[in-house]
Amino acid sequence: MKIDIRRLKKSLLRLAQIGAVPGGGISRLALSDEDKQARDLLVGWMEESGLKVNVDQMGNIFGRRSGSRKDLPPLLVGSHIDTVRNGGKFDGALGVMAGLEVVRTLNDEAVSTKHPIELAAFTNEEGARFQPPMLASGVMAGIFPLEWAYSRNDVNGLIFGQELKRIGYRGSVPCRPRPLHAYLEFHIEQGPVLEAEKVPIGIVQGIVGLRWLRVTLEGESDHAGPTPMSMRRDALVAAARAVEMVRGIPRRMKGEMVTTVGFMQVQPNVVNVIPGRVTFTVDLRDRYEKRTERAIGMVKSGIKTIALQEGVKASFEEIFKSSPFLFSKEVVDTIAQVCKSFQWPYRMLMSGAGHDALYMAQRTKGGMIFVPSLKGRSHCREERSSWRDIEKGANLLLHSTLAIDAQ
Amino acid sequence: MKIDIRRLKKSLLRLAQIGAVPGGGISRLALSDEDKQARDLLVGWMEESGLKVNVDQMGNIFGRRSGSRKDLPPLLVGSHIDTVRNGGKFDGALGVMAGLEVVRTLNDEAVSTKHPIELAAFTNEEGARFQPPMLASGVMAGIFPLEWAYSRNDVNGLIFGQELKRIGYRGSVPCRPRPLHAYLEFHIEQGPVLEAEKVPIGIVQGIVGLRWLRVTLEGESDHAGPTPMSMRRDALVAAARAVEMVRGIPRRMKGEMVTTVGFMQVQPNVVNVIPGRVTFTVDLRDRYEKRTERAIGMVKSGIKTIALQEGVKASFEEIFKSSPFLFSKEVVDTIAQVCKSFQWPYRMLMSGAGHDALYMAQRTKGGMIFVPSLKGRSHCREERSSWRDIEKGANLLLHSTLAIDAQ
Repeated sequence: MKIDIRRLKKSLLRLAQIGAVPGGGISRLALSDEDKQARDLLVGWMEESGLKVNVDQMGNIFGRRSGSRKDLPPLLVGSHIDTVRNGGKFDGALGVMAGLEVVRTLNDEAVSTKHPIELAAFTNEEGARFQPPMLASGVMAGIFPLEWAYSRNDVNGLIFGQELKRIGYRGSVPCRPRPLHAYLEFHIEQGPVLEAEKVPIGIVQGIVGLRWLRVTLEGESDHAGPTPMSMRRDALVAAARAVEMVRGIPRRMKGEMVTTVGFMQVQPNVVNVIPGRVTFTVDLRDRYEKRTERAIGMVKSGIKTIALQEGVKASFEEIFKSSPFLFSKEVVDTIAQVCKSFQWPYRMLMSGAGHDALYMAQRTKGGMIFVPSLKGRSHCREERSSWRDIEKGANLLLHSTLAIDAQ
Repeated sequence: MKIDIRRLKKSLLRLAQIGAVPGGGISRLALSDEDKQARDLLVGWMEESGLKVNVDQMGNIFGRRSGSRKDLPPLLVGSHIDTVRNGGKFDGALGVMAGLEVVRTLNDEAVSTKHPIELAAFTNEEGARFQPPMLASGVMAGIFPLEWAYSRNDVNGLIFGQELKRIGYRGSVPCRPRPLHAYLEFHIEQGPVLEAEKVPIGIVQGIVGLRWLRVTLEGESDHAGPTPMSMRRDALVAAARAVEMVRGIPRRMKGEMVTTVGFMQVQPNVVNVIPGRVTFTVDLRDRYEKRTERAIGMVKSGIKTIALQEGVKASFEEIFKSSPFLFSKEVVDTIAQVCKSFQWPYRMLMSGAGHDALYMAQRTKGGMIFVPSLKGRSHCREERSSWRDIEKGANLLLHSTLAIDAQ
């Protein structure tokens, strides 16, 4: 039994038309009009495939295919269809479309599973519009309270709960932990490792720990002309030194840690005024909790030292934290066995990015399959994976689903 | 004969109500609704003082008090009433209000001058909304073409010429060089030198040279999680190193050079995305042209080296340049003699900031008087000067005006 790669490709590219921006990227921010359009398309496809569609209080969409045993909980297969601004066609969408392709293939072959299969599309995985990311799978896993999630707002002050209602996807099904047999997610790697090693499949052992810090530096805004260098308290000079220090931490820590300053805002941000205030974020990831803890300590103490030297005031806010997580050995081993049976090369790896699987796997046994990202690029218009790899990955998803259903 | 400091203070504080922002600062950007209100107030005061008001094509306002000799060109006294965002009460406004106080005092004392006295308020001195700064005095001095000035736009794409019309200050008087006897400008120092040396008066010998550079660094936008540190082309890391390098240049050059990165914009500016593009400005000032030239060369070559090391592409755009300028020795000496006659301590200095006087003094003999800025602060809500110093400065302006009129 094999999935139909042409049908999968066609669906994925059809979905990619929604929110497409000039240059080949996609902007389909959570709860935007584009997100609504994409949801409507997905729900239509689910219903055409005979799935019973439910939308929960967080707008998570589930399409259910009955199993032969009424008493068993469902096996979830899914991902998300929201994107970052100017993101790519594959991130998230591939997992949902491949899950749909699994269902279509089971239908074509009239295969019945013991457990119900549910195709899942989670709301606001990216966190690009509403922070934190993986908000809705987090609520479903019991990690975030529903009302807190509803109260999140975007940079324009628009409220998650109201935006969800506006696009017509504030469902009535309770969003909370429920019995599940397993959760499987197929995704692009979003990193360069698989391509560099010429391996078509990555089997994900777990997800690295993640810390987000918001740093504010307050100096003194002053005219750039008559203020001597020695009398300045320039918040941007301090921030610049902090960026470099943060970038140097993985080198000092060794291993595979990554650190990123992705966001920075300068005030008043005028060519001839010494910056009085700068806010920036630090994103820090590693597979070992102790190391993230130590590194965050280094970030803070390093910035405090710089602040002291530059005469600015530093303050910190931890805006997000997620511990390193290992997937169920049973699921990981099953996927690896299926992969071996096809004689496809694979590699075990840790995911550097968070995924809905991180939260779902805290409520049921979970696992993820990766395919290579060309040049390791993602969250950009150049994001791409080869259809040959995708075909392998989707077939691996199909047969892993069947193998786990049988357990 | 003495100015009335209470009247001057009252006018200045009344003007400061327009555009006042919580915390004590002022946002009265050029050609904003607040600028229009302030202009209306000023024109009213000019007319009350018997001045004949003219508005030129650039919105520069001139209030003319006739002289006893019809054949002589006017002596201009003035400054500007626009501010930066969250600027202070004194920058610019003090010069215009002190000029008004000079006129009021001459009226009170029924003093007639040989030359007509014109009180001038120049449009868009700050360059905070429309670049370059000193745009309208620049047109009047024949440095910028009128149509080019009209076509300047702000960050929202609003056009100078249209905004000028919108607020009703696109006058019909040609804005171009015309015969002038002299130009005097009273201003706050905007630097810490006078206060540090406890001198109430600064007599300005000239204005330092200024260079503005816009730098764009293009790297590669990528997901912050799965992209190893060694494979990144992070535009913000490169920009951060550039900021530090630019800050270090005055130390390497010695002397009184100052360098500032006041503006920075990061793209896409998302916490978990490696910055793909950063744009920032460099502001560099020194009293010697050769040194600014050499330092700009160092900035460019330093950034090129960093760009190479970080795998990003650097491009440069020179957005503004102004050569060091020395004021008329005759005017500077006259102001100094008047100051000596009052036995007020004074200090000769160079202005670190550009002023309308810079352009006007290229068409007529010009000079400037400074009073100390508390803690050297300006372009911020803490901008302040003591009323005692202001009284001395305004009296010096009055008597220098009379002395230069007599020449």
